[in-house]
Amino acid sequence: MNNDLELINNYQKEMTLLNQSIALLEWDQLTYMPSKGVGSRSEQISLLSNLIHKKMISNELFTSLNALKKQKLSNKNGLMVKKLYKEVSKSRKLPEEYIKELSKITSLAYNAWELARKENRFKKFQPYLEKIVKLKKQECKYINEPGHEYNSLLDQYEEGMTVERLKPIFFKLEKNLIDLLNKIKESGNYRKQKKSMLKQHFSIEKQRKLCDDVAKRMRLLSSFSRLDLTTHPFSEKIGVDDVRMVTGFRESPLFSFESTMHEAGHALYELNLPEEDAYNILGKVPSLGIHESQARFWANIIGQSSSFWKFYFPIFKKEFNLKGDFNQWFKEINYVKPSLVRIESDELTYCLHIILRFELELGLIEGSIKVSDLPKLWSKKMKELLGIVPRNDKDGVLQDVHWSGGSFGYFPTYAIGTIYSSQLYKQLLKERPLVEEKIRKGNFNEIILWLDKKIYKVGNKSTADEIIKKACREGLNPKVFTDYLIKKYSELYEI
Amino acid sequence: MNNDLELINNYQKEMTLLNQSIALLEWDQLTYMPSKGVGSRSEQISLLSNLIHKKMISNELFTSLNALKKQKLSNKNGLMVKKLYKEVSKSRKLPEEYIKELSKITSLAYNAWELARKENRFKKFQPYLEKIVKLKKQECKYINEPGHEYNSLLDQYEEGMTVERLKPIFFKLEKNLIDLLNKIKESGNYRKQKKSMLKQHFSIEKQRKLCDDVAKRMRLLSSFSRLDLTTHPFSEKIGVDDVRMVTGFRESPLFSFESTMHEAGHALYELNLPEEDAYNILGKVPSLGIHESQARFWANIIGQSSSFWKFYFPIFKKEFNLKGDFNQWFKEINYVKPSLVRIESDELTYCLHIILRFELELGLIEGSIKVSDLPKLWSKKMKELLGIVPRNDKDGVLQDVHWSGGSFGYFPTYAIGTIYSSQLYKQLLKERPLVEEKIRKGNFNEIILWLDKKIYKVGNKSTADEIIKKACREGLNPKVFTDYLIKKYSELYEI
Repeated sequence: MNNDLELINNYQKEMTLLNQSIALLEWDQLTYMPSKGVGSRSEQISLLSNLIHKKMISNELFTSLNALKKQKLSNKNGLMVKKLYKEVSKSRKLPEEYIKELSKITSLAYNAWELARKENRFKKFQPYLEKIVKLKKQECKYINEPGHEYNSLLDQYEEGMTVERLKPIFFKLEKNLIDLLNKIKESGNYRKQKKSMLKQHFSIEKQRKLCDDVAKRMRLLSSFSRLDLTTHPFSEKIGVDDVRMVTGFRESPLFSFESTMHEAGHALYELNLPEEDAYNILGKVPSLGIHESQARFWANIIGQSSSFWKFYFPIFKKEFNLKGDFNQWFKEINYVKPSLVRIESDELTYCLHIILRFELELGLIEGSIKVSDLPKLWSKKMKELLGIVPRNDKDGVLQDVHWSGGSFGYFPTYAIGTIYSSQLYKQLLKERPLVEEKIRKGNFNEIILWLDKKIYKVGNKSTADEIIKKACREGLNPKVFTDYLIKKYSELYEI
Repeated sequence: MNNDLELINNYQKEMTLLNQSIALLEWDQLTYMPSKGVGSRSEQISLLSNLIHKKMISNELFTSLNALKKQKLSNKNGLMVKKLYKEVSKSRKLPEEYIKELSKITSLAYNAWELARKENRFKKFQPYLEKIVKLKKQECKYINEPGHEYNSLLDQYEEGMTVERLKPIFFKLEKNLIDLLNKIKESGNYRKQKKSMLKQHFSIEKQRKLCDDVAKRMRLLSSFSRLDLTTHPFSEKIGVDDVRMVTGFRESPLFSFESTMHEAGHALYELNLPEEDAYNILGKVPSLGIHESQARFWANIIGQSSSFWKFYFPIFKKEFNLKGDFNQWFKEINYVKPSLVRIESDELTYCLHIILRFELELGLIEGSIKVSDLPKLWSKKMKELLGIVPRNDKDGVLQDVHWSGGSFGYFPTYAIGTIYSSQLYKQLLKERPLVEEKIRKGNFNEIILWLDKKIYKVGNKSTADEIIKKACREGLNPKVFTDYLIKKYSELYEI
């Protein structure tokens, strides 16, 4: 028996179990916790996070990892040691003092962001964001990935991704999206488009029923998953066979349904990761980009497709007693219109919102942009990318929570995942040409089996980039996504 | 700044936060967790329990406690050190190996108990219980409280309580209860008693509404508490201002209502413990007996009183469209009849079920009773105490979960709490003579304020015994309880 191997496996298992416990504490906080429970809750989460961090940077773990690096191990164990060593080394690069300061400032910044948003005044948030940016620049120095300083942040969410690689990809993506958007905007269909069916009445109770229905069709059975309600949709893996999805209702009657599919996409991935690696680093999702690809694959590529609505439209029409035909419905589902708020934007303009944030983050980390200039630059870039300008900070620079938590380098993964999702679908159609027929019957089993083989069961044994390369025979390619959009929206807008 | 004091306070806070996290993991397991989550859940709970245990027996904590014992401290800190030292010393007496073995066997025993119950065969459970009894005898040797060996178990749940003190109390209680029961059984009212109103229809939805209503009247507002549904009622404190009650529906239409009051009694106590001691040993409930006294005070003494039903009967009558009058209703609420299952037994016979278990536990620990003889002895004692005999193990020796978990010395606290509850009510009436008028109006505020002062706010600064002595001017006195029963049931049965 290899003692070092046993030790690192125990460490990984304990960290996983603590993370799952935190996931439950968070899930409960956002679903069932009485409001006054919040004080104890933040102390509980903070203690468990601290215990994980202590384990991660413990000398005992590091010593065993170093010993194992010199040993002859099986391929799988060798890979596990390599991956864990990288993660541990990165954590050890950040001084205790730095972590405490970041944690302190982000907790204050969250409250400041909420208040600033409520009062619609960026100035209230600005001093906190300035401190966070300063700390994040410091973090890049500690981590010190090769190349652009921002790589140290990006790599935390999307292993192996670099500014050098991403910049030209986003540049191409931006150009193609704006071209397509302009063509659409010039079309007659765009000028006369309006929502009539989506303005009809959709009872909450029936919305809920259809959310349950689609989750079940996606094989998320109640023995290992739940769907609850809150304001902001999310999903959390609580245990090996226990995943929680949360959706909610918004003005758009499709919000709950689409977000259920989005969270169900995440949930399917988490549930089907390789069980034998449930308690070690190889059983994790390899990057946020690929995680997001699963959500967007289901909610957008499938959930906004005509095959899908061939199945669901008659059900919706009957349940909600809708007036109007399939063609009108499908147009409204895929209504393109530049809008101010990222999470309410359409499939086409979504990535432009991401590119805006990526460019601002790069500038902040490089030092070419000052925090105080953000509202002004936000408007300028919105004008350039989407042709519209927010009238206030709330619908502009204050709309996302991410920066208040210090999550720089996170936004790009949304666009990466979106591109991946289109690449996966293209490949799926190649390998399973009859899949759209099945979708038209509300049968997703073949898709799930395919994703299981190509994505889920790989776990973290390959990087996201390697998984996509192997599955789709090429790495991140924005052209596949824009080609998909061009085909779909040219038909819809007759351009 | 006293470093040792800071250290022991940090330890206590971390152990409390870990315990609260476990409480949430348990609550979730019994309410919302998908069934397949159970595997990960037991690993999560086991890890956190282990972390607490490691903290409890850590040399660092023990060294600081020993240092503090020699220092001049404030009265309060001195008391905290004394109490914590006692608890820590006790934990340190149990070898690691012993704890692992007990944890292993109880986890197997729980499954064996469930199976044995399902198949109605004590023999399936017997070998596990034999091992548990052997380990518990071992535990008594490790702990080694003075006097009877069983004291080492009893003291864990009811600090300071001994067999020497409890035996004559239970002897007196048994005699008086059997006398009263026999008198009732000979009465004409007993012979002709029957349930008619409780056999009518009580819709689940309205039961739920009334459960919410009574919890709210007991000041358990939704900002710091919840009431959920499951099969076995329980309550858990999840955070300083966060307590969860769980009730359920059974054949008796009053089960959900009574168990809500029972759990609400526990919940009120937990919520109103001294906040300044939320994270140290002085902020805990001092014993299970006094905890139970709060539950039984509300569910039995108040919840089965005529004053209480003067308020609630008209509401019940209206909600459930009941046929029959108050007198009949009140009789049915307080229907006395020896029955086989403890948790379904009436207020009068309940403690006889406890005495039976106490006597069997004593015999097992003393070695005068063999586990294999339990079913036979159970029937013999049931005959002696209640005049009835179970026809199978399921309704007899297999009915309670406690022994499968190694909880010996726990049952007596139910009877202790029952006696305490009657003593508290007697004293309350002396000090607040108008309280029954308030109860008749559904107003419990004065009671809660009184309990807050006498019980809740003391926290663990006194033992249960000291609290009751101070509040009621005498310690545990079974006569107060039997006097209360004699008065109430003499009227009801006209004896």
